[in-house]
Amino acid sequence: MNIVQPAAPPLSPELIARFRAVVGDKYAVTEPADIAPYLTEERELFQGRSPLVLRPGSTAEVSAICKLASEYRIALVPQGGNTGLVGGQTPHHGEVVVSTRRMDKIREVDPASNTMTCEAGVVLQVAQRRASDADRLFPLSLGAEGSCTIGGNLSTNAGGTAALAYGVAREMALGLEVVLADGRVLNALSKLKKDNTGYDLRHLFIGAEGTLGIITAATLKLFPKPRAVATAYVGLKSPAKALRLLAIAQSEAAGSLTSFELLADIAVDFSIRHGIDIRDPLGSKHPWYVLMELSSPRDDASAALEAILAKGMADGIVDDAAIAANLSQRAALWKLRDEMSAAQKPEGGSIKHDISVPVAAVPDFIAEADAAVTKLIPGARPVPFGHLGDGNIHYNVSQPVGGHAADFMARWHEVNAMVHAIVMRMGGSISAEHGIGVLKRDELPDVKDEVAISLMRGIKAMLDPLGIMNPGKVL
Amino acid sequence: MNIVQPAAPPLSPELIARFRAVVGDKYAVTEPADIAPYLTEERELFQGRSPLVLRPGSTAEVSAICKLASEYRIALVPQGGNTGLVGGQTPHHGEVVVSTRRMDKIREVDPASNTMTCEAGVVLQVAQRRASDADRLFPLSLGAEGSCTIGGNLSTNAGGTAALAYGVAREMALGLEVVLADGRVLNALSKLKKDNTGYDLRHLFIGAEGTLGIITAATLKLFPKPRAVATAYVGLKSPAKALRLLAIAQSEAAGSLTSFELLADIAVDFSIRHGIDIRDPLGSKHPWYVLMELSSPRDDASAALEAILAKGMADGIVDDAAIAANLSQRAALWKLRDEMSAAQKPEGGSIKHDISVPVAAVPDFIAEADAAVTKLIPGARPVPFGHLGDGNIHYNVSQPVGGHAADFMARWHEVNAMVHAIVMRMGGSISAEHGIGVLKRDELPDVKDEVAISLMRGIKAMLDPLGIMNPGKVL
Repeated sequence: MNIVQPAAPPLSPELIARFRAVVGDKYAVTEPADIAPYLTEERELFQGRSPLVLRPGSTAEVSAICKLASEYRIALVPQGGNTGLVGGQTPHHGEVVVSTRRMDKIREVDPASNTMTCEAGVVLQVAQRRASDADRLFPLSLGAEGSCTIGGNLSTNAGGTAALAYGVAREMALGLEVVLADGRVLNALSKLKKDNTGYDLRHLFIGAEGTLGIITAATLKLFPKPRAVATAYVGLKSPAKALRLLAIAQSEAAGSLTSFELLADIAVDFSIRHGIDIRDPLGSKHPWYVLMELSSPRDDASAALEAILAKGMADGIVDDAAIAANLSQRAALWKLRDEMSAAQKPEGGSIKHDISVPVAAVPDFIAEADAAVTKLIPGARPVPFGHLGDGNIHYNVSQPVGGHAADFMARWHEVNAMVHAIVMRMGGSISAEHGIGVLKRDELPDVKDEVAISLMRGIKAMLDPLGIMNPGKVL
Repeated sequence: MNIVQPAAPPLSPELIARFRAVVGDKYAVTEPADIAPYLTEERELFQGRSPLVLRPGSTAEVSAICKLASEYRIALVPQGGNTGLVGGQTPHHGEVVVSTRRMDKIREVDPASNTMTCEAGVVLQVAQRRASDADRLFPLSLGAEGSCTIGGNLSTNAGGTAALAYGVAREMALGLEVVLADGRVLNALSKLKKDNTGYDLRHLFIGAEGTLGIITAATLKLFPKPRAVATAYVGLKSPAKALRLLAIAQSEAAGSLTSFELLADIAVDFSIRHGIDIRDPLGSKHPWYVLMELSSPRDDASAALEAILAKGMADGIVDDAAIAANLSQRAALWKLRDEMSAAQKPEGGSIKHDISVPVAAVPDFIAEADAAVTKLIPGARPVPFGHLGDGNIHYNVSQPVGGHAADFMARWHEVNAMVHAIVMRMGGSISAEHGIGVLKRDELPDVKDEVAISLMRGIKAMLDPLGIMNPGKVL
């Protein structure tokens, strides 16, 4: 089945006027300078072009936009906070951008039902705060939370640092409102935890990166707010030891273990070297570190954390550990982790991977990938870090010291292919949390079950027969 | 879009021979006496008919069956443990039954990755025990667990008593293997917690009641095994008070609160009257009861439970409470709950509902439904009980004392319509955990979003263009 690619004709002034009439003059952006921020993203890997950015304020306006786009076969690129890392939100071929940022209402918070209904453009941090104000937790948490939006989080099925205990974005959505390519509105905004009336349509749109429709609102799960959080920074010898510590922590803390991040020494070094106001939390160097956190509704998080560390030391797993004594120490530990991507920039070119493997396979994956990469490019510096509890490692590789960044970056695909081959052999995923977008689109057929690809194409053809929804992404 | 209904021609001896050759003589059941157990279910609401029951032993055999069925347009009804309550597993129109019970291998247990890969025919209780042997918990738990199967649990998206903390069956499956209507095998048996490579196909098949394909295996999540479980039986005045107790319990125990069941006094009375060896755990009668349970990896479950009950008493919510002092007391409390469906039988006809509403709406739902039902049928006895923490109530109605069962049961649809109207007004679901099957199929268009129904039909037509997969169910 072929996905029809829209002809992408230049937009006539008449058609622009019709789109403008839907959202109002003020919210139809046509000046190149005003459009520019919608065309690039933080890493500057992608540069798009677009004649028109529409900023609808309601579901009805999104529906009208899609109807008009269907009528004239105009390709649309939905965009939230524009923080995606795979080019999914970028208009690569002159598509019209539909920015959901103005749809920023929190329609309802229902603490008794533990739900919150947000429009697509609500910024993640705003949603977190609103939940907190209602004495609840909305646990989704990631680096871009100050600007990414709920619609984008769901469209990309965001992961982040709390997925270990609370699951990925997919698992936090009870219901969705979605505008389909033809403008019809799927109203599936349910507050129900159990509903077995027919096929689950939610999960089609979550993670579809805007290629099947535009998510305009979602009913999200809320959780009890933890009263106590305990955070430790642990020095140890290897990923295998970290895996053993994870097993102890899960056995002792179960769902209270809310983060378990594995950090290579070089990643920590980069953060300390290039970060602002970050000091080494331990007195001496270790080859590997774990940043772990327990959250509890009672005041027992510290005791549980201490028990885990004591067992880890007794078993010869933990070589040293520091427990955050207060909120500012906790913030400093997390900053060390959060700076890791940014801290690689001053070290030159960085070839990135967002992979997952079965949790038990992480140590082997890192060992094999390190060996393969440094054999391919002597002096290349692997900088692995990430969510060990989810089997999700950001396996970034910095260029050799003193080498040329451009020469190194030219080998992006070669390094990717080698690392991804190891991932696939271990039953892993080449995109654990960032999605496919355009960056990994051409690799997808090599890593995905053939039947799965065929079903994906069938679903795409059914939901978007004209191919106007974010064309060229994913498939 | 119309779903093509197969012509259901009588099976020729030649075709039976071809099916028989796929599974082997021993596993092609044609004797009426041997077929009989596959045609009825426990409640005896449905009686099917079938010329042939196939008992494949492998995914390849299921694939060959589907290929042959496609070629000759033979309708298939997949069946697991045959414990479904909505007639989804019954061959109502002479279809061929495909029983997955022989596919009962646990292919792998991986405690380090917290996963277990089971074939469709593995009995739920067997899966639970195998997880326990590996010092892990597979938390799905429901009344039929001694005979229902993993394939059926996933196809119906089973809920049960642990969904409050661990989610429904859908949330426990990391990956699936599915045989499609045309015999192709979708291999999506992933052990990954994070995988954002394309559309999520898993969730199409989970809860589709065998209408889109046959689930042949699944990779399931395992959890840390709780070391301590604390169980209390609480007497209180109203569902509204139970809701307040739930809020306290969630605030104090968060994810450690693994069950929170609301029980009407009449449901408890029935259990005590008709149950075996069940005694009233509290000294005096109360209008409502809550059976709650905390599970913890540490030894703190009892202390947390006591704190919750103490707060409930201080706030005037809890009137009396008994804490299980040992495992046999705990078992007795759960038996009281588990007998509730069976204990309604000796009371005559029972009209059943499996509904959910937003958690906060449960007290209003019960009050309105009680008033409506007893106005419609004076003397009718509502027997509500269920999973308050999920907003999921089994709202059963027993016939008036001394009335005629058949007269009462003749009003099934009338009572359903009235109760379901209240459910829909509150944004609820008419099938929280049992599914649609044939029992609620004709009601579905009235309660489901029109666009959702249209998308469901499109998905059905795409995946099963000949309409041979469990025809007449759901849609």
